[in-house]
Amino acid sequence: MQISQKAAQMPASAIRKLVPLADAAKAAGVKVYHLNVGAPDIKSPREAIDAVIEKCTTMHHLSYTNSAGFIELRRGMVEKYYKKIGIDITLDDILIDVAGSEAFAVAMQIAADRGDEIITIEPFYTNYQTFAFLNGITLKAVHSDIHDGFKVPDMSEFEKLLTPKTKAVLLSNPCNPSGKVYSKEEMLAIGEFCRKNDLFLISDEVYREFCYTDEPHFSAMNIPGCEQNVILVDSVSKRYNLCGARIGCMVSRNKEVMAAAMKFAQSRLCPPVLGQYAAIGALDTPKSYFDEVHEEYVRRRDTAVRLLNEIPGVFTPVPQGAVDTMVELPVKDAEAFARWLLTDFRYENSTVQLTPAASFYKTPGEGKNIARVAYVLEVPEIEKAMVVLAEALKVYKD
Amino acid sequence: MQISQKAAQMPASAIRKLVPLADAAKAAGVKVYHLNVGAPDIKSPREAIDAVIEKCTTMHHLSYTNSAGFIELRRGMVEKYYKKIGIDITLDDILIDVAGSEAFAVAMQIAADRGDEIITIEPFYTNYQTFAFLNGITLKAVHSDIHDGFKVPDMSEFEKLLTPKTKAVLLSNPCNPSGKVYSKEEMLAIGEFCRKNDLFLISDEVYREFCYTDEPHFSAMNIPGCEQNVILVDSVSKRYNLCGARIGCMVSRNKEVMAAAMKFAQSRLCPPVLGQYAAIGALDTPKSYFDEVHEEYVRRRDTAVRLLNEIPGVFTPVPQGAVDTMVELPVKDAEAFARWLLTDFRYENSTVQLTPAASFYKTPGEGKNIARVAYVLEVPEIEKAMVVLAEALKVYKD
Repeated sequence: MQISQKAAQMPASAIRKLVPLADAAKAAGVKVYHLNVGAPDIKSPREAIDAVIEKCTTMHHLSYTNSAGFIELRRGMVEKYYKKIGIDITLDDILIDVAGSEAFAVAMQIAADRGDEIITIEPFYTNYQTFAFLNGITLKAVHSDIHDGFKVPDMSEFEKLLTPKTKAVLLSNPCNPSGKVYSKEEMLAIGEFCRKNDLFLISDEVYREFCYTDEPHFSAMNIPGCEQNVILVDSVSKRYNLCGARIGCMVSRNKEVMAAAMKFAQSRLCPPVLGQYAAIGALDTPKSYFDEVHEEYVRRRDTAVRLLNEIPGVFTPVPQGAVDTMVELPVKDAEAFARWLLTDFRYENSTVQLTPAASFYKTPGEGKNIARVAYVLEVPEIEKAMVVLAEALKVYKD
Repeated sequence: MQISQKAAQMPASAIRKLVPLADAAKAAGVKVYHLNVGAPDIKSPREAIDAVIEKCTTMHHLSYTNSAGFIELRRGMVEKYYKKIGIDITLDDILIDVAGSEAFAVAMQIAADRGDEIITIEPFYTNYQTFAFLNGITLKAVHSDIHDGFKVPDMSEFEKLLTPKTKAVLLSNPCNPSGKVYSKEEMLAIGEFCRKNDLFLISDEVYREFCYTDEPHFSAMNIPGCEQNVILVDSVSKRYNLCGARIGCMVSRNKEVMAAAMKFAQSRLCPPVLGQYAAIGALDTPKSYFDEVHEEYVRRRDTAVRLLNEIPGVFTPVPQGAVDTMVELPVKDAEAFARWLLTDFRYENSTVQLTPAASFYKTPGEGKNIARVAYVLEVPEIEKAMVVLAEALKVYKD
């Protein structure tokens, strides 16, 4: 008996494959600074957790909801969230998913068949590649460069990748892993490219509330003339620090897309109900919460970026959003370095865990000397982690 | 822009596609007896709900768990549940999934590639067909007949379907929709067939605690010599009436299977965390809870079966397990009848919703005059629903 080729060849998570090495280090009593996971450690809004407690207190039976999620949650998102941030949608345009992961996995399948192609921008979120692989979709990538702040390349670079098999453009904005926030002009250009070439635009905006520039976030939902092209992927995971709720949504004004999404939704019956309660509660999160989180992340980002760039041979641009930054290292192979950090290097009995960036790229060789650093630790911890990293680079030999 | 062929051709849920008609009837003030959904209405164990409240009370941050789920939940399932029911597994053999739905969707993909074949037994749970379709797997079905209580056909019927592309046998035991509980002899025969032909045996046992015969449930995990073949699909949804928690698991002693399952698990980051808390709490559910639920379902089943068989022209066998029974109706097309019930028929301003069974069958024409009845209402409601159904059949013209 053999497992399927698909299961055998499926790539393991680049982000999580160093976990056993980190676990071994920790088991040996070593302190590991986790700069590897984009899981915000900031408290969830009390409104979200209290909503769960309140519901549970009077609950007799934890039953299914509609496959599209509680109507109360969908309506709440439309009225209390999207309306407020200037995204004008109706109840029919939104469906609750099992986090952003399900939303983009389904969106990709709605846009593209096996053998079709989706264009993304490298560096990209690795699980786009995972779900492309699982569904026989070819992911093609235009290159954005660390040295010009991951600016969106000229549309002629997108045109070069265009074939009759191209069905969609997929991007995350703000971008995980680069922290790039797409400008309105960049989004309009991508929108025009999609409109002109009859492509879906799958816009993953789960980090929307994590923008550190003065320019407001410009959602793909607001590109004029792209109403039928855009499929928005969203989530409460980052916005309200509710990663464990596993609640996201797909939003589109394209009725055919939403009808198809409903068939996918029915196949897994319903989204997690307790998480939906948390999401309903989270809709009443006060503005002060976001202000505090915003300030905290700016502090963390500034600390991480400053200290990284002070290390000889290290370069990172200033990320405009999300919680990660891409860091060019004075090493030949960031993956070998990341492994060595966990297996061999100790500074005052501590080390750091980084995510090697090669799997965020399609172009062979790109990202080889780059690691992703998630600045999800408190400032004093980031400071200590950077000392450890600096010491490591002093002694590391490729 | 066109949606993918896959999304366009994906079958809509047979169980849920009548929902809009039922909603319309209800909106018009009609009472609809829901005999269509296998969603138990019985209260969840207080231990499960209280565990969520307790965790939330001291929770600051709803973060990710390991992709395989909380180790506390996996260990609890191994020690407090599987050990108790005589399934001997270790912590490495179990991974928490987003309900049984994810577990069998992943198990099918681990067993079979696009173009491969999986043998099941009709009538079968319709979403097996949905996930076969989504993954380009061909589902083939041996026929089990309503008139002999859905007895497993002779293994020669399985042999007939065997090709070099056959990779697995997939079944639910107790069976949704038929209520069939596979005897030890039947399971041993299927196990031997899988062992002999190097096939995985994907055994969906989410209704394990819903067996109404004196014979104990015989799990595929206990077929001698099939340790490497068996992939168990399980869930807390039915066992503890926690459908909304969306927590299930995959269990297998095959290390290659579990390593592949972990890659799938990582691609969706982690299972719902609040649901995991409910599942941890549910492990302390007292035996008295199961005894009460058992008694209640036997009462419901006996009432439904007796009243159904009293209606002229109607036949249903006595289901041995789960919460559904297959009902042969004196109509040519059960789907047309089910629609008519919702759109046209009213008895004392009420009607019933049934699930037409054709989509539970692969053999053309089979199941056409059969509906699935879920006996998930309280006895007095079942009694009233059967009166409505009897009155409907008096006046219905094909």
